[in-house]
Amino acid sequence: MKFIYSLFLVILVNLQVVANDGYKLWLQYYPIEQAASWQVSALTDQKILGNSPTIDLIKKELENAKAMLEPNKKKHQKGNNLLIGKVGDLNLNHIPTSQIEQLTDEGYAIFNHIGSRQLIVTSKTDLGLLYGTFKVLQLIQTGNSVSNEGLFESPKVKHRVLNHWDNLDRTVERGYSGFSIWNWHRLPRHIDQQYHDYARANASIGINGTVLTNVNANALVLTPEYLEKVKALADVFRPYGIKVYLTARFSSPIEIGKLPTADPLDSEVQSWWNEKANEIYQYIPDFGGFVVKADSEGQPGPHNYKRTQADGANMLADAVKPHGGIVMWRAFVYNEHTPDDRHKQAYNEFKPLDGKFKENVIVQVKNGAIDFQPREPFHPLFGAMPQTPLMMEFQITQEYLGHDTHLAFLAPLFEEVLKADTYTQGNGSEVAKVIDGSLHGHDFTAMAGVANIGTDRNWTGHHFHQANWFAYGRLAWNPYSSSEEIAEEWLKLTFTSNSDFVNPIKKMMLNSREMVVNYMTPLGLHHIMAESHHYGPGPWVTGGRRADWTATYYHQASEDGVGFDRTKTGSNALEQYATPLQEAWESLETVPEEYLLWFHHVSWSAPLKNGKSLWDNLALHYQKGVDESRENIAIWKSMERKIDHERYTHVLSFLQIQNQEAIWWKDACLTYFGQFSQMPIPEEVEKPLHDLEYYQRIKPKNVPGI
Amino acid sequence: MKFIYSLFLVILVNLQVVANDGYKLWLQYYPIEQAASWQVSALTDQKILGNSPTIDLIKKELENAKAMLEPNKKKHQKGNNLLIGKVGDLNLNHIPTSQIEQLTDEGYAIFNHIGSRQLIVTSKTDLGLLYGTFKVLQLIQTGNSVSNEGLFESPKVKHRVLNHWDNLDRTVERGYSGFSIWNWHRLPRHIDQQYHDYARANASIGINGTVLTNVNANALVLTPEYLEKVKALADVFRPYGIKVYLTARFSSPIEIGKLPTADPLDSEVQSWWNEKANEIYQYIPDFGGFVVKADSEGQPGPHNYKRTQADGANMLADAVKPHGGIVMWRAFVYNEHTPDDRHKQAYNEFKPLDGKFKENVIVQVKNGAIDFQPREPFHPLFGAMPQTPLMMEFQITQEYLGHDTHLAFLAPLFEEVLKADTYTQGNGSEVAKVIDGSLHGHDFTAMAGVANIGTDRNWTGHHFHQANWFAYGRLAWNPYSSSEEIAEEWLKLTFTSNSDFVNPIKKMMLNSREMVVNYMTPLGLHHIMAESHHYGPGPWVTGGRRADWTATYYHQASEDGVGFDRTKTGSNALEQYATPLQEAWESLETVPEEYLLWFHHVSWSAPLKNGKSLWDNLALHYQKGVDESRENIAIWKSMERKIDHERYTHVLSFLQIQNQEAIWWKDACLTYFGQFSQMPIPEEVEKPLHDLEYYQRIKPKNVPGI
Repeated sequence: MKFIYSLFLVILVNLQVVANDGYKLWLQYYPIEQAASWQVSALTDQKILGNSPTIDLIKKELENAKAMLEPNKKKHQKGNNLLIGKVGDLNLNHIPTSQIEQLTDEGYAIFNHIGSRQLIVTSKTDLGLLYGTFKVLQLIQTGNSVSNEGLFESPKVKHRVLNHWDNLDRTVERGYSGFSIWNWHRLPRHIDQQYHDYARANASIGINGTVLTNVNANALVLTPEYLEKVKALADVFRPYGIKVYLTARFSSPIEIGKLPTADPLDSEVQSWWNEKANEIYQYIPDFGGFVVKADSEGQPGPHNYKRTQADGANMLADAVKPHGGIVMWRAFVYNEHTPDDRHKQAYNEFKPLDGKFKENVIVQVKNGAIDFQPREPFHPLFGAMPQTPLMMEFQITQEYLGHDTHLAFLAPLFEEVLKADTYTQGNGSEVAKVIDGSLHGHDFTAMAGVANIGTDRNWTGHHFHQANWFAYGRLAWNPYSSSEEIAEEWLKLTFTSNSDFVNPIKKMMLNSREMVVNYMTPLGLHHIMAESHHYGPGPWVTGGRRADWTATYYHQASEDGVGFDRTKTGSNALEQYATPLQEAWESLETVPEEYLLWFHHVSWSAPLKNGKSLWDNLALHYQKGVDESRENIAIWKSMERKIDHERYTHVLSFLQIQNQEAIWWKDACLTYFGQFSQMPIPEEVEKPLHDLEYYQRIKPKNVPGI
Repeated sequence: MKFIYSLFLVILVNLQVVANDGYKLWLQYYPIEQAASWQVSALTDQKILGNSPTIDLIKKELENAKAMLEPNKKKHQKGNNLLIGKVGDLNLNHIPTSQIEQLTDEGYAIFNHIGSRQLIVTSKTDLGLLYGTFKVLQLIQTGNSVSNEGLFESPKVKHRVLNHWDNLDRTVERGYSGFSIWNWHRLPRHIDQQYHDYARANASIGINGTVLTNVNANALVLTPEYLEKVKALADVFRPYGIKVYLTARFSSPIEIGKLPTADPLDSEVQSWWNEKANEIYQYIPDFGGFVVKADSEGQPGPHNYKRTQADGANMLADAVKPHGGIVMWRAFVYNEHTPDDRHKQAYNEFKPLDGKFKENVIVQVKNGAIDFQPREPFHPLFGAMPQTPLMMEFQITQEYLGHDTHLAFLAPLFEEVLKADTYTQGNGSEVAKVIDGSLHGHDFTAMAGVANIGTDRNWTGHHFHQANWFAYGRLAWNPYSSSEEIAEEWLKLTFTSNSDFVNPIKKMMLNSREMVVNYMTPLGLHHIMAESHHYGPGPWVTGGRRADWTATYYHQASEDGVGFDRTKTGSNALEQYATPLQEAWESLETVPEEYLLWFHHVSWSAPLKNGKSLWDNLALHYQKGVDESRENIAIWKSMERKIDHERYTHVLSFLQIQNQEAIWWKDACLTYFGQFSQMPIPEEVEKPLHDLEYYQRIKPKNVPGI
């Protein structure tokens, strides 16, 4: 016993000493304290049926996962306690056949078999088994046993993809955690271990596709030199169930095909794309397809030839169709020469095209009509194109939520959008039902998340931004998941199951996005960040090349008030929503305060629900965000001894930066808007330390992500 | 006993399972098999005297190092077996006082104390204790016990610095292992663990300075916004004994000072630099000083004002002098408008200035007169400026030796230069004696190594390129060290002490640089790489903006022969060397074959020492390099079970790339030169697979490092 005790001590000491740089993400497999008998059983004697590269991954994963048990090895129990095999291979009576039959190809079942006393993971496919294996291991790590009813899980969305805005020179547009993990120069000859680790992490949360390249695309990736490199990555990712996609630059036929035009109705252009698709599929037989950003922010597109977005998308769809490929065509189309409210342009462009897209085209719509703001009402297109499969584009990387250093758990943002009711088919027409296809009966479903992954040793810059990658995966699998459950699971997998840590930190995570809204863009303010790099406040940004890239365009502040009038007296963007929403949001009485300045221009002195003026409310929101970011530091400090020192210190310094920048946002915005309101800052609010000129003079150099 | 046995098994299994990404460098502290009693003693009971941040680092290091003992813990022995303390704190009789007195401030002694049976590490300073501690731990890991005489070590060079060619946007000029580890955007508010790990690794090999920024400098780093960031790094590095230096852009007074000139004799300019230095030292009281690249490759400098290099250097020297700072002024000055052989220009520029530099200026001279080629004769300046302290600039990053993927252990290259005899003061006037100051009686000594460090998880891209960082540190500490000892020590610290691994791999390392010379630039060929990115062969590079950036300028190939005539009939660069060397190198009979085409234009059919023609010899050298790179793959494959899988696989794929590229070099160069020789490729040589046009058409995109 003494020896065992000292063994425990050695292991505990090691846990504290060994640096944890976060590379292992939510796959820590840290030793479970006092593992229960079922956990020990499942990890110590297993039988895995089948034979394939994916099955090999399952075996390796179970081997890795044994680390969870080190102090409990003595309890080793024999008897194939965990059985993993495809439905047809099981050869068992008393399995829940009907529930298993309902699984999709990627679905899995986990249940305790009554006859054999085995824990069973089954599926129709090897990939489903891999997903089920990860789930079992997650249950073991978090200490959640399988109920008597068992667990039957199928993804509700078919294509669950990450979008990397990675350039071929390894810079990452809107990337704040280093540079691209794709080392194009070394590919295809060197396959880095990180590519495996990337695929494994994605598979462990059900992501099944990756778009390797930036939507602001470079045609070079479609040349043989780069296709060989893409193929090498696809070969790594295949056993993990991850398909590779590329962004297609619309003008590629000109740039690399030497054609005089890229007109989608030109037969030479069509042939060029057909042949290009044939070529790509020779390298990668299961190539996923194309993502396209066209006619937006300087990108070429069908508009250059007076064609519609459908003309462009359908040409590419025809090219990949014979190979089973798809086209994800982005709806993020707006034009600085269009005089109308940017909010309305995508709807105006796409709604008339409903039903005009080929069957392997899905229209990729950002969650809101502007651009990934800390809070936006859901995009009106989600309620407007019943005949067209629509997919969600979320931004995991925090372009507008503080970049690398701000803790903002995004699941509540994603959940808010997914749960929003479009009222397209009456009450209960939530966005989630558009995305999972159930509202309009589409089988072709997808979700995209703009990745926050880079060369930083912990992948995502902020350790807590790993949670946003994780949450995206969970919500793409099941858009009805709850933020709270995701946060709890992620914390337990990533740090510890100690409830003294999990409970307070979960609360902090769940509140964090609202906190960011408060100190950046409360009450429906939006797009008031610094120009170009979008780092820090810039409510004064005005003029320049494009009005729709300024802040003044969006906040419309003057002495008579602030906010963008999108009611009938203004741009009437509201008419793009269903009647119940139009009615609720066009009235100052009924519009939710979080959307107030999104839809209304309101006088500074107008009283809000609490009886205080708009100005006072604005100031109090900013202060609340600052206060909360300060409290987070104290909460985190109380966790020092509960987790490893390296991650503790890293997170602490980021929380401190976040608090400083929350104050920066508050002070800059209140100083700026105060010029117009000419009202005093309420007593409860800390006074800005500097004058407006000071804040306007701040010009950080070499900000990452552009 | 069964339990202990199973404990061993657990640990062994873990060693194989746990991925080793190489981040720990030569500080692996892997468990020693069957540790001897002295190793166990030294690691299990220690007494550390003193109290300072550096002493804290020593304690932490000893704690980390305990990992070496895990399976031997049971042998724990009491009695302060390892005693670490400054000379004045020791309070012991029978210590080797006179040897200790001779130590420099950074030196250390390690010896077994007869009276107390303790192993003692002592020094005059805490930093010396840190160096001594690292040495003791290296001895323990490699199993080399301290002899009865003890070990008394002082560095022979005072300033042992890394030069980072890192830009403020985190790109790295000639950097092939990712991007800059300096995250300027997050500094000073976030101090990454990697900064500590960087400093620790450097301290463990005696490096005591770091130049953070590219010699192609950006004045922005001298503004308060960036000085705050530099200060943050300096604060991290200080306890490790590492001083921070910056590159000074000569035109900074114009760019950030808004002066109309940067003339070094202008009093306003001088005042500006004086004040800038005062400002820097307020941030960083122990700031090391400036490194300057002036009047070269487009950089501004004193030539812009018709001043000398001494005028420029002395102005900066005056500015940092009151604070104890130094100026490292680079001799790498050449001009495309100067008609003379580039080889001669630095000498012509600097020799007349001998004795004209202020006492805190040291002239930084690259090892050869061209530019870090796989092989160059030593730079003639080393024999030409007795009154001026000269420092060595080596390039650790492999700009011309295959970038990230080619194994080329550089210690033999460094050693070859250091051991070269300049004959300045007669026989035995080796370059090493110029560098350590002994030849001309200079106290002010320094060495610089252009770093190969980046964001790659293993720091240096190739695992074996860690050895070049290590070797540089060892040779900067002691320029008389042997490559073989360095290789052996590095291998044992980094992988294993198993001689079945160490011996063959050491041999492979020691031969690797000559192998690269063979397949790239045999027989004195030089500067025949591709233009701009310098990746791959480019003997056909000609024309363009600068003749001195082409290949044809250097190889002068025509039907009558190949090689640069630097004898009296040519540029007579030879006259810059001492008479014995002139005599030996100007004759075709006595010039070493490795310098043949460096100094001579030789006809293709001229017989060399082996009786075969120059052309045949050239071809055979190329083939030899290819053959050896192929053999390396086989040797490495036989090591599969001797080390961890992750590093094994990584190195293997790089060796395979190296072999492919060796063939590429051979085929491209022989095809190109064959046009002129019009002689058949010898039978023993594998024929090129393609025609010249094929090789010339290869234009890799987005090559890292520019």
